[in-house]
Amino acid sequence: MDLNSLFSPKAIAVIGASPEEGKIGNVILTNLKGSYKGKIYPINPKYDHILGMNCYKNISEIEGEIDLAIISLPSKYVISSFKECQDKKVKYVIIVTAGFKEIGGEGEKLEDELKNIIAQGETRVIGPNTVGIYIPRNGISTALTVKERSGMPGNGNIAYISQSGALGLLLLDVFAYQNIGVHSFINLGNRVDLNENTLIDYLADQKEVKSIMMYLESFSDGKEFFEIAKKVTQKVPIVLLKGGITQSGQKAASHHTGAMMRSMEHLEGVLKQCGVIKASDETELVDYALALSNLPLMRGNKIAILTTAGGVGVTCSDIISKSNVLHIANLSEQTKKEIMGIIPPIGSANNPIDMTVEATNEQYQEIIKLLNNTDEVDAMIVFALFQSPKVDENLIAMLDRLKNGKPLIIGNIGGSFSHDMVCKAMSLGIPFYPSITRTVKAAEALYKYSIIRGEANGN
Amino acid sequence: MDLNSLFSPKAIAVIGASPEEGKIGNVILTNLKGSYKGKIYPINPKYDHILGMNCYKNISEIEGEIDLAIISLPSKYVISSFKECQDKKVKYVIIVTAGFKEIGGEGEKLEDELKNIIAQGETRVIGPNTVGIYIPRNGISTALTVKERSGMPGNGNIAYISQSGALGLLLLDVFAYQNIGVHSFINLGNRVDLNENTLIDYLADQKEVKSIMMYLESFSDGKEFFEIAKKVTQKVPIVLLKGGITQSGQKAASHHTGAMMRSMEHLEGVLKQCGVIKASDETELVDYALALSNLPLMRGNKIAILTTAGGVGVTCSDIISKSNVLHIANLSEQTKKEIMGIIPPIGSANNPIDMTVEATNEQYQEIIKLLNNTDEVDAMIVFALFQSPKVDENLIAMLDRLKNGKPLIIGNIGGSFSHDMVCKAMSLGIPFYPSITRTVKAAEALYKYSIIRGEANGN
Repeated sequence: MDLNSLFSPKAIAVIGASPEEGKIGNVILTNLKGSYKGKIYPINPKYDHILGMNCYKNISEIEGEIDLAIISLPSKYVISSFKECQDKKVKYVIIVTAGFKEIGGEGEKLEDELKNIIAQGETRVIGPNTVGIYIPRNGISTALTVKERSGMPGNGNIAYISQSGALGLLLLDVFAYQNIGVHSFINLGNRVDLNENTLIDYLADQKEVKSIMMYLESFSDGKEFFEIAKKVTQKVPIVLLKGGITQSGQKAASHHTGAMMRSMEHLEGVLKQCGVIKASDETELVDYALALSNLPLMRGNKIAILTTAGGVGVTCSDIISKSNVLHIANLSEQTKKEIMGIIPPIGSANNPIDMTVEATNEQYQEIIKLLNNTDEVDAMIVFALFQSPKVDENLIAMLDRLKNGKPLIIGNIGGSFSHDMVCKAMSLGIPFYPSITRTVKAAEALYKYSIIRGEANGN
Repeated sequence: MDLNSLFSPKAIAVIGASPEEGKIGNVILTNLKGSYKGKIYPINPKYDHILGMNCYKNISEIEGEIDLAIISLPSKYVISSFKECQDKKVKYVIIVTAGFKEIGGEGEKLEDELKNIIAQGETRVIGPNTVGIYIPRNGISTALTVKERSGMPGNGNIAYISQSGALGLLLLDVFAYQNIGVHSFINLGNRVDLNENTLIDYLADQKEVKSIMMYLESFSDGKEFFEIAKKVTQKVPIVLLKGGITQSGQKAASHHTGAMMRSMEHLEGVLKQCGVIKASDETELVDYALALSNLPLMRGNKIAILTTAGGVGVTCSDIISKSNVLHIANLSEQTKKEIMGIIPPIGSANNPIDMTVEATNEQYQEIIKLLNNTDEVDAMIVFALFQSPKVDENLIAMLDRLKNGKPLIIGNIGGSFSHDMVCKAMSLGIPFYPSITRTVKAAEALYKYSIIRGEANGN
């Protein structure tokens, strides 16, 4: 389905626009006014002007076409307002309002009614009960956040679909802090109409999207997801965090979203079949999406570890060995000899390659180039440790020049300066991982996806 | 053994002191001059003054007693210099110099010679091949770091013993960034004399030490470690990251530290018997030490989850359920009713307790107080999410007032503002964990240690 008018609308109406600070209808309007370049139509019968813009009594008053309307009215007014949108031939409506199926009883009835009405027209709906969408490239944000306490990321190549609004916004804050960009964020809400399947199908064809990450507590249509995901993952990786996979989690999810889930004991197997990479928590979700968005695929699982801190190499070896997904590459005597020609004599060319605290940016570069030219290695886990006295921030530019060779999965351990370096690297599309385990797991996800894409053989 | 003169020396000699910036003998002197309150004696026959201090030709020239001498000379001068320290009855010597056993050949011989000489006197030695010690409470740092790129933490209650110097300093940088304090940091180096066993035995009796965290690649004396650890862990928790537990890791460790290790297939079982908490990577090492230093023990494993973000509660439930260490507490109808009297009606009192995005600081407080007074719950995993519009930074002060009730293991997901809140909380001794998994794992470590201490029953 062509969702261009949802992701790149030319005109947006805000139904329930408000001049009162803190109200959602005010926040949305303020967000749009600051950054959205298309036409904005505030709608509220009580006002002539809001934030210096003409305000309309209702949507039918507007002369031009409306691609997207955002409804933030009390739930009892939503249906009549939506009908007006249908009459106006609005292409997409986001219903922010809560108080539908998730509260049960009357809310459930209201949602059924809404569904029936949606079915009678062409207008497609996201929500209700959603924080909506965030599309930095087009300056669109419908999210109610406290700006001083919650960051919003810049433009990037990860599309993020979340069934949970709150977890959605939390991770956007994490993204902003680490300078990771997103192509788009969509909070599904109660999914009366548009669901994750339609969205991934569309997003996979957008050239700016390099990975799709999803948080779901239930599948709208599991069979359809399977079919679409199978196709999509041959073009673009999907990383999924499925909430409610255990009985307790399911009980919690079932309250929270109002959705009952079928038992999904063999989730892992099913996801593997359709090529979806499974995340076990929100950190893996972000980490894997980041790796799959930015790194070239791996031809195999032979890993070289490059470090300036012996203990980091030792621990990384342990973690790789225990996981059994990746292998620590066996380097030939010839390769080791060449490595010893680059690093200080007290270093080690046995993999992990320990360049010692004396390492320089240039030594990193020479070893990466050397390993790019040998079949003994498929990818490199590189610990970029800025505490080493002879390494400095130019290491980032060097890694940037080398990022299109064999995959470099970069680990980093540190504090304030390291955080600045991470942000700098992220802006160049170089993922940095702040722990040894997270670095190894990102490499594993990359290898798994490389198998899915037929680039590497499974083991 | 009484190591007071090592940890709180009254006079320090720096052998190999240098006026040249960047040289280790200059860095150590500069570090001490800035913060150490005792007497400092620079020693170098080439200078009369260094950094405005009288410089001595050799240690015998000094009239007063020397508690601690730091030797940073080329390896060939180390032995004669150490002999002078022995003659002077210096109590402790830290030999920073590398080029001993870890380089093999001549270095190994030199180390054997050094050992023999040490055995002939009373002077005890840390090193060689060590970054030395860092004791913020006494203003002592022998570590060579680039200050702009590597932070050093403030004073705290964690004692940190590391066989790896580089990994040691990396984690100190992590500590500094998150405002976690340390009681002391000791890099063991080649352990010609003082080893981890002597250190933990001493540290466990220091009232300022609330936990000991260790990175080891080999045990100096495994049997002795077992015996001492068994005794120590009844007073103070020990968290251990053992590098080189797999074959590859062991190969890497063996190069790096010059120590050959015995096979330790059943490490986990052995550590359990002596009450040591095992960490699988550097993140767990810090996380567990932090929890065990600051949180009260748990009486059992019935966990209440408190969140303002439904998806976070769902994911947390899944993670707890999968691990089988903790249990999600079953709340009685009465308790649930009381919770519903506190939280918004759209929230959920089923555990996880979802206070929704409408939650306030006061609601957090009331629920924690309520759960403190019921046997249905042994500890609470509380997600302190500052993005919720009605929650603000006063939540920290509230958590501070409640920190001596049942253990509160606090999770937090977010960006810049959250980081500031984490730093604030850490300074009050309230551990914050930046991911759901890490929060759950910290709670697990606390429960495991509570069993070791006989406070909780195992399951």
